[in-house]
Formats: sequence, structure tokens, C-alpha cells
Amino acid sequence: MRYALYYWTGIQGRGEFVRLALEDAGADYVDVCRERGDGAMGAFLDGRAPGATPFAPPFLKAGRLVLAQTAAILQYLAPRLDLVPDAETARWKAHQLQLTVADLVAEAHDTHHPIAAGLYYEEQRAAARELAAAFRRERLPKYLGYFERVLEDAGGAHALGRHSYVDLSLFQLMAGLDYAFPAAMRRLRRRTPRLRALAQRVAQRPRLAAYLASPRRLPFNESGIFRHYPELDG
Amino acid sequence: MRYALYYWTGIQGRGEFVRLALEDAGADYVDVCRERGDGAMGAFLDGRAPGATPFAPPFLKAGRLVLAQTAAILQYLAPRLDLVPDAETARWKAHQLQLTVADLVAEAHDTHHPIAAGLYYEEQRAAARELAAAFRRERLPKYLGYFERVLEDAGGAHALGRHSYVDLSLFQLMAGLDYAFPAAMRRLRRRTPRLRALAQRVAQRPRLAAYLASPRRLPFNESGIFRHYPELDG
Repeated sequence: MRYALYYWTGIQGRGEFVRLALEDAGADYVDVCRERGDGAMGAFLDGRAPGATPFAPPFLKAGRLVLAQTAAILQYLAPRLDLVPDAETARWKAHQLQLTVADLVAEAHDTHHPIAAGLYYEEQRAAARELAAAFRRERLPKYLGYFERVLEDAGGAHALGRHSYVDLSLFQLMAGLDYAFPAAMRRLRRRTPRLRALAQRVAQRPRLAAYLASPRRLPFNESGIFRHYPELDG
Repeated sequence: MRYALYYWTGIQGRGEFVRLALEDAGADYVDVCRERGDGAMGAFLDGRAPGATPFAPPFLKAGRLVLAQTAAILQYLAPRLDLVPDAETARWKAHQLQLTVADLVAEAHDTHHPIAAGLYYEEQRAAARELAAAFRRERLPKYLGYFERVLEDAGGAHALGRHSYVDLSLFQLMAGLDYAFPAAMRRLRRRTPRLRALAQRVAQRPRLAAYLASPRRLPFNESGIFRHYPELDG
């Protein structure tokens, strides 16, 4: 099966969670917008293309199936790419964890866009400072503490006791948070030893290391979800 | 199978989406915290209970499975309660739609808590006014327009061409938005005829009508996700 991934060019964004799974598995896929531009998504987003109409990217085309929502795409791909255990309970746990990653990603996004996605950061800077302070103080330690305990309960090395797409997503989460909130993440370093070790190991997986060193891996930037604005890092 | 639902007492919240599915299907379930108090969730939330540790309620216990994240719970329950078509593509579409409902629910929540869930509404009222205005102007019409088109594409009456948990969730979405933003929703009435008709039909389903008339259906209130603050309704 050749998969087609549709996502905005120019940023890692939510599409990167899907890209990491495809790259780590060595899957056959085409990153459609990087070849044909963002306009390639138009027919899907306005319902002219067949299949379920996505509310927003990323979405995946797999044969006739068109599927949006990052966590759903990963849930669909994982058994096909050997990125999740076989046991049903482990698969539900993986999905639950991925949805919790998605919640944290949304909250990290809101730190720089607390009022409206349609406004520039500069137009909502005061609220952003307030939200980011609450995020660093309460939400970030709570989420990372949760994932740290998930790793601990699963034996320390993997979220599900073996390599899975959840490990890839936790790597991406740590990479994005390190970029956006380097000072806050440094302060949490001693409380996140398992997440730190996991992120290092994931980055050294041969296919993933090759991907991360390639031009396909875009750098983080201030158009994406994880943005570095020093005043939001405390 | 007797299901156990765990969710905060005192509010409908995200738990209500699960409750509606269980009630509409006439499933055998216990609403644990309403019998034993919110403390019944403690052992699950701090990892002392067996099974996957939830980050937050609602979560469902089904035999040995413990599953959190509203959309995942509904995805698990739906085939068992005949609340989704059999076809795999329809099931993925259902999950995609439910995750998009969840995104709108999160944005509706943020209108009254734009800065921090840990602060009172009164402490973030200025930002709330700004966010709510952007929500009413851009996000609400965009989401409802999307769901309206989903209904249209599926024949007009149901999100998936037959009754499903997505219809129940769209009913709950409309009920909550009507409560929180009556003026804004009135202005969108002519652009949401199918959602309006769907919500009416769902409310008349015999088991659901009985549930909605029962004391088990809590009224909306200003501790829940959908809150009515007149100044946020424009």
C-alpha cells in the first residue's frame, strides 16, 4: 500500500506525528503537498474529493479511505506498520496515550494563540504571557509527570513495553517542547529521566536518524505549533 | 457486559457523550461516582488500580479494560451497542467526526477559561470576552457549517446515513451550544437546518427522551464545559 499524506508545507505541525510513523517504519508514502503544494488539499477540504471530508489537515489517503485527525490516522496505520502490540488492550492504551499527547499539543499551541488562531501572535501577546505562565507552572509538569509514570509502569523504556508509535510521538513532543520552552524544560529535566532517555533512543533508531538528518525534517519555526518566543518561556 | 462509567458528579461535561450512548442503547451500566462519589476515581487516576492509568475522566471500565478519552470510549462501545455501521470506512469516519466534535467542545470550554483551567472565570474575564467573540465569529460557524455539510453529504438525516453515536454527540453539541450561546446560535439557525432537525429527532428517541426527562440528566450549569455567561454571547 502506498500511503498519501496531506499536510501544510512549511511546518512540522501535527503532520509530523504521522510522518515519523511512516519514516520509522520505512513505509511507502508520498508527502503530497511537498510535491504539489498546499492546493492539493483543496478538493478534500471542500468535499469535492470522494471519501470522508476532513475538517482540517493532516489527513491520509489509503486506497479509498480518506482519514483525518492525527490520532485516528496513527491508530489506523500502527497495526499495518508494526508500530503497536497485537493485544487489544495495548492498542486501546496506545490510542488513549496518543489522544493525551494531542491534548498537550493543543495546549502548547494555545500558549501562543490563546485568543484566536486567526489573529497574529503579536495581537494576543498579553494573554499569551498569562497562559504560558500557567502552562509552564501547572499543565506541562502535570502532563510530563503523567507520561513519565506511564513509562515507569511499563518497565521504563517504552510506553507500551515495546517500541510503538506512542514512543515516536513522545519523542516529537519532547523535541517540540524543548524548542518552544527550553528553560522550562531544563527545570523539569530531573523529573523526566525516562522521557529524556526515550527521546534519545528514538532519535538513534536507524531510519529515524536518517530522516532527522534529511531535508525532509523541517526545522521548528514560528509558524508551527511549537514556537519559541522567549517571553513565553519565563 | 456491565459497563462502569467514571466521571465527575455535578456536571454533564465530557462524560455526557458516553452517557448518551449508554442510555440510548439501553446498556447495562453503573455511573460509579454518582453512587460512590468522585473519590471512586482516585485509585485509577493515581495508578493504584489495574489497567491503563487515565490522565483525566471520563473513563470506562469494561471487564479488565480501563479506557479514557471520550472519543476512544465511544469508538470502543459503538460496535458493542449497535451505534455505528459495520463497514470499516464508516467506523473510521465516525471516529474522525467524534474527534472533531471533541475539538469543538475543547474550544467551547476555552471561551470561559482561555488562560488557565485552574483559575476562576472571573479571573480571566477580559481574555474570555475576546476569545468568545472570535469563537462566535469564526470557529462556531466554521465547525457547524462543516457538520451541516457532513449531514447533507450523507443524505440529510444522519451523519453516517443511519443512527449512530455521532448523531447523539451532535445532539449534545447543539444542546450545549444552545445553552451557552443562545443568541449566537439563534443567528446561525438558518444555516443549520439539518443539525436542528437531527437534534430534535434524537431528543425524541424513546430511550433518550426518557433519559432526558429523568433526574439522571443533570441541567447544564456554570461548572461544566458549556456555560452561559451573557457577556460571552455577544
